[in-house]
Amino acid sequence: MNTQKESFLNRLFDVSNDPEIISFAGGLPDKNLLDVKGIENAAQDVFENEGREALQYTTTTGYLPLREYIAERYKKRLGIPACADEIRIVNGSQQCLDLTAKIFLDKGDFVGIEKPGYLGAIEAFSMYQPSFKGVEMDGEGISANGFRELFEKEKPKFFYGIPNFQNPSGRSYSTERRREIAEILTETKGIFYEDDAFGELSFDNRPIPPVKKFAYDNTIMSGSFSKIIAPGMRMGWIYAPCEIIKKFDCAKQAADLHSNFLCQKIMHHYLGKADIDNHIKKINSIYKRKCRLMCDLCDDILPGDVIRTDPKGGMFMLLTLPKGINSLKLFDRGLEKKVSVLPGIPFYTGKGGEDNVRLNFSSPSEDEIAEGMKRLKAAIDDF
Amino acid sequence: MNTQKESFLNRLFDVSNDPEIISFAGGLPDKNLLDVKGIENAAQDVFENEGREALQYTTTTGYLPLREYIAERYKKRLGIPACADEIRIVNGSQQCLDLTAKIFLDKGDFVGIEKPGYLGAIEAFSMYQPSFKGVEMDGEGISANGFRELFEKEKPKFFYGIPNFQNPSGRSYSTERRREIAEILTETKGIFYEDDAFGELSFDNRPIPPVKKFAYDNTIMSGSFSKIIAPGMRMGWIYAPCEIIKKFDCAKQAADLHSNFLCQKIMHHYLGKADIDNHIKKINSIYKRKCRLMCDLCDDILPGDVIRTDPKGGMFMLLTLPKGINSLKLFDRGLEKKVSVLPGIPFYTGKGGEDNVRLNFSSPSEDEIAEGMKRLKAAIDDF
Repeated sequence: MNTQKESFLNRLFDVSNDPEIISFAGGLPDKNLLDVKGIENAAQDVFENEGREALQYTTTTGYLPLREYIAERYKKRLGIPACADEIRIVNGSQQCLDLTAKIFLDKGDFVGIEKPGYLGAIEAFSMYQPSFKGVEMDGEGISANGFRELFEKEKPKFFYGIPNFQNPSGRSYSTERRREIAEILTETKGIFYEDDAFGELSFDNRPIPPVKKFAYDNTIMSGSFSKIIAPGMRMGWIYAPCEIIKKFDCAKQAADLHSNFLCQKIMHHYLGKADIDNHIKKINSIYKRKCRLMCDLCDDILPGDVIRTDPKGGMFMLLTLPKGINSLKLFDRGLEKKVSVLPGIPFYTGKGGEDNVRLNFSSPSEDEIAEGMKRLKAAIDDF
Repeated sequence: MNTQKESFLNRLFDVSNDPEIISFAGGLPDKNLLDVKGIENAAQDVFENEGREALQYTTTTGYLPLREYIAERYKKRLGIPACADEIRIVNGSQQCLDLTAKIFLDKGDFVGIEKPGYLGAIEAFSMYQPSFKGVEMDGEGISANGFRELFEKEKPKFFYGIPNFQNPSGRSYSTERRREIAEILTETKGIFYEDDAFGELSFDNRPIPPVKKFAYDNTIMSGSFSKIIAPGMRMGWIYAPCEIIKKFDCAKQAADLHSNFLCQKIMHHYLGKADIDNHIKKINSIYKRKCRLMCDLCDDILPGDVIRTDPKGGMFMLLTLPKGINSLKLFDRGLEKKVSVLPGIPFYTGKGGEDNVRLNFSSPSEDEIAEGMKRLKAAIDDF
């Protein structure tokens, strides 16, 4: 990581506990939407009925009933023929990034990524010293031409992308673009790492067919309970062809033997008892309102030459700043005005990000969004 | 992993759910010693008082009060000046192995290890393709000469060892040997990875000074709640100099952002309320009895040319088989007699282990130990 990035990420950390600062820089779900009571009840059930088993060692693959639940949900929601053998439980989908990189990447290998791409993936992959190849995004997703050229020329070990409500941009791939990408994958025998951390957070609750639907054997999907149930339990999964899963199991076993068994059981009990669809609908209606509010304030009070994305789900939007405003300088000025934004710089593997900032709308309250956007306006007006 | 190892580990897995087989092959703590009720009460406290916080994202470093507890316990038990800044929470000490390897090892680097050495460490390190250098053990621990020669000639990135109740042998280093090793480390500026998963499991409850006490800045220690509280919660820690911790934090963040926050809080509550010293004394008195029983049966019913180690703590002992009995063949014959043992082969990074088997005494009941040893005798008698 270069010094510039390190320095502002450190400052970000330093101010993250300042209660006077309204944070649009983080990536937390709304804490008021955590079903504490429901999870507590599930935990009590687990302790009463199978506590001794839940506190013991278990298998690396993850709790089978939980994997079956995930497979069933894929079938029901997305109409893809998932089975438990293709699914493994990990410590949040971040661990999927690490372990996938571990089994695929050697120093100098090519890996493709969206431009801008998810910071956490860049960090995880970077530990294995690959050579990143960014592909630009347009309104429909990553450029199909850029994607084809990448797979035909550099033959990356895999391409990493977030087709639904991307982090940091909030953009989604169109269904047509997904089909095009799937075709290229099939032709070139390429692999697409389809991070679907946000897929359930669709404001209109409509499921969107994943790239996996059109190129089943060419995709590694990952999913997460962090955005829809609780991040503190660190629970996500990988969903991939069995020959990849086999290698993944070796890497997972070497990494930490298995994921927290107590929480796997609690999660499974909770999912069986709660009305998950309704819970997710509730999250989506609230995030939709917060996002709408933030978009409206962007349009109404920020200068007309600030351009924003138009998320239809997820937790983030991306602002492109007018010429002459640097995102790091805006970050500093924002802190003076008691609002924090995330400069786009760490989302680029090469140059880029000086002209954009990521805003999070899931965590702040509506009042905080209203006040924070005023502060952001004041910070921008200073330039 | 070579095919021979893979094949028997697969067979081991296949039979692990056969209730008719008495297993000495595993490495589980006694399930009857898990304080299910105590942990349940701690969980309830956490949900009632800070559930919303516990279910949210947190920092990579781990829960500060838990790290302070661990530091205090080191000070009190071992008289070493630990502080929370030197301690990080991980998913069981297995994750420490992975992340330490990740920050230290590049392909082809030398890493030192006991001969035989812990299977889980060999698996974790192997992902980074180092070149292993084994050092023989004698009754006092690893050979001081071998250790010195290794650090003077091959200069390994670090040496990995388990001075207390080693896995697989059950042997411990003498205090004198620890001092010698510490001296060599200081002289050669070497690093010792001191895995202390079993240090609390001393049958006479007497703390033993770690190598770290004599070479503070040259050691990375790791510890675990898996053997004394509950493995299913996957909670261990690293305790290392701050400059190593800084790199470790980057690797941990890239690996999975942070460890399960809910369980970190539950563990901390539990440790604050339970009488841990008494709990550990109880474990030790039971493991001591089981170990004694297994040793006595080795001496009384197995052929006189079967040699065993003499553990003073931990969960394992190692048998050396008479000439002409191969550990893999004994494994097979054992399964026929419905007892499983672990051939020594995967504990060696080169050749070795055909003449020894590891026995676990913590998990089976005393009745199972008595019956299992009879079956093992029958299997050996077949040769």
